[in-house]
Amino acid sequence: MRIALDAMGGDFAPDEILNGALESIPHLDKDDTLILVGPAELIESKLSAKNLSKFADAIKIVNATEVIGMDESPIDAIRKKRDSSISVMTKLAADGQADGVISAGNTGACVAACQMRMRNIEGVNRPGIAVVFPTFEGPVTMCDVGANIACKPINFYQYAVMSCLYSKNLLGIANPRVGIMSIGEEDAKGNETVKKARELIKSDPKINFIGNIEGRDIFKGKCDVAICDGFVGNVVLKLTEGLVDGLFKLIKHEIMQESWFLAWKFKPIVMRMYRKYDYNEYGGALLMGVNGTCVICHGSSKSRTIKNAITACRKFHNLGINGQIKEYLAASAIRGADE
Amino acid sequence: MRIALDAMGGDFAPDEILNGALESIPHLDKDDTLILVGPAELIESKLSAKNLSKFADAIKIVNATEVIGMDESPIDAIRKKRDSSISVMTKLAADGQADGVISAGNTGACVAACQMRMRNIEGVNRPGIAVVFPTFEGPVTMCDVGANIACKPINFYQYAVMSCLYSKNLLGIANPRVGIMSIGEEDAKGNETVKKARELIKSDPKINFIGNIEGRDIFKGKCDVAICDGFVGNVVLKLTEGLVDGLFKLIKHEIMQESWFLAWKFKPIVMRMYRKYDYNEYGGALLMGVNGTCVICHGSSKSRTIKNAITACRKFHNLGINGQIKEYLAASAIRGADE
Repeated sequence: MRIALDAMGGDFAPDEILNGALESIPHLDKDDTLILVGPAELIESKLSAKNLSKFADAIKIVNATEVIGMDESPIDAIRKKRDSSISVMTKLAADGQADGVISAGNTGACVAACQMRMRNIEGVNRPGIAVVFPTFEGPVTMCDVGANIACKPINFYQYAVMSCLYSKNLLGIANPRVGIMSIGEEDAKGNETVKKARELIKSDPKINFIGNIEGRDIFKGKCDVAICDGFVGNVVLKLTEGLVDGLFKLIKHEIMQESWFLAWKFKPIVMRMYRKYDYNEYGGALLMGVNGTCVICHGSSKSRTIKNAITACRKFHNLGINGQIKEYLAASAIRGADE
Repeated sequence: MRIALDAMGGDFAPDEILNGALESIPHLDKDDTLILVGPAELIESKLSAKNLSKFADAIKIVNATEVIGMDESPIDAIRKKRDSSISVMTKLAADGQADGVISAGNTGACVAACQMRMRNIEGVNRPGIAVVFPTFEGPVTMCDVGANIACKPINFYQYAVMSCLYSKNLLGIANPRVGIMSIGEEDAKGNETVKKARELIKSDPKINFIGNIEGRDIFKGKCDVAICDGFVGNVVLKLTEGLVDGLFKLIKHEIMQESWFLAWKFKPIVMRMYRKYDYNEYGGALLMGVNGTCVICHGSSKSRTIKNAITACRKFHNLGINGQIKEYLAASAIRGADE
């Protein structure tokens, strides 16, 4: 597999990105190539400082002179910075020179670039971003968390299809229970789009659909797949991040007030929990529905996340999930307009 | 103040509701009356078992023979069960026989009944539910969390106005920082409604508007007031509830695996945290924008929450916040259609 990696994306680029790439090399197959995209001279000097000649076969550098900042407007940036690492990376995929792309840079720009250049899988109306929430009751796949903030019923249906294939193939869940995020369990609850989406999903007997789920259900083991609008999903993702951080800070504060000894005893427990339920383990989020494999990493990604993203990208590609999505949708009678 | 209390609402009605009413009596003014709404015979027998003759002056019972179940469709239930405790309670307010209403019953039915019978404050297009999140950085007021799942820009603006008055008067925050929930900090982020709402709020110089906030910001002390669509707010509210519960369960599980001694030492810390950051302290959520004071309690409310809801209801009423809302909106140049 040929993976194009945005060497300039994220808060710790390029060093942590390059370190992640190097850490992943021992785990690659001999046919795999990592294509590092960014200013060639800079990348070369960084790599030579790390004394990397022995990995020469696995690594290729493709020059890209510009960088899209984390706060730039996605569409504008993609249009204006045609030689940015994100633009060049997705162009490689579009031209058939890369099978997958990975970036920890500006998420909006990366999603926009993938959509514009790589095009959708046949049958997919709009791509969606899927993330995995590692919960006490098992991993929950949520889609969409930010690619599509004006979801139509057909988009929800296709997110359910794609997330099920993700959950089955990557997480090994044989018959994932699919819920749709709403504001009450009863069928009557939810806005019009959610209600229509529910009917569409319900009409596919191959989906193990459990109906509405509420915010609290994600962490209660009620479903394996949670489908939602990109606006709602993005709020959920970031809220979870902020709340978990805040709560641990709070607990630390309270324990410190009690005793230093207790704080000292508690620390390894927290560390163990972080390891067990660390979303960095999943490497990032997948933009599902585009031709090729696109992994989007958190802006704060360090080398371990990048390494895991490369692993996830290979796994997704090698399992042929995109082919399965195309096949499933071709056989499904459920069609819908995106407008 | 005359407060009508739905004696039959919630998972622990009527006992916990009546207990809460009784616990609140020592804190009432001599002019205050609690009107218990529900099957008169049942309530009387419960009260006489509690030997309550000495409080006779403070308590009144109004008969209502029906009860709306927690899972019934709100609009249907309100239409069909005209003698339900929720219907009768809101009718008392509509007829000028009660100044405030409190229910731990079916939230949707309570909101619908208040809107239908009590009507909106002059100038308010749509009421919204405000809750307070007790965070490490201070209390954050969020509105709307479920009354209005198809918010128009004008609704967002009015939620900002009402929540500011809530935050100032009830929480003592002099100049509350107002954020609007979106999916990125930059102005360009968000859906069309949110973008238009942002312009409306920004155009009122009396609001200390900080622009977009993300899910993570609620717990990071970035704002005092968070404005959002009722769909998003409801997901946020329930997610927070589920995540906090799940996380504490997880921590308990991990500590127990480490040592019983540590678990035993940790327990009082958790209890203290629960006390400090307990949303039950706030008694419930306020349906802001209707004529009268409407407090909506969680279905799982026990006596302490009901007691606190009665306190919150009195405080809101006595501070004259509804009058302030009316005055503010009358003076504001910002108007908008609700369609």
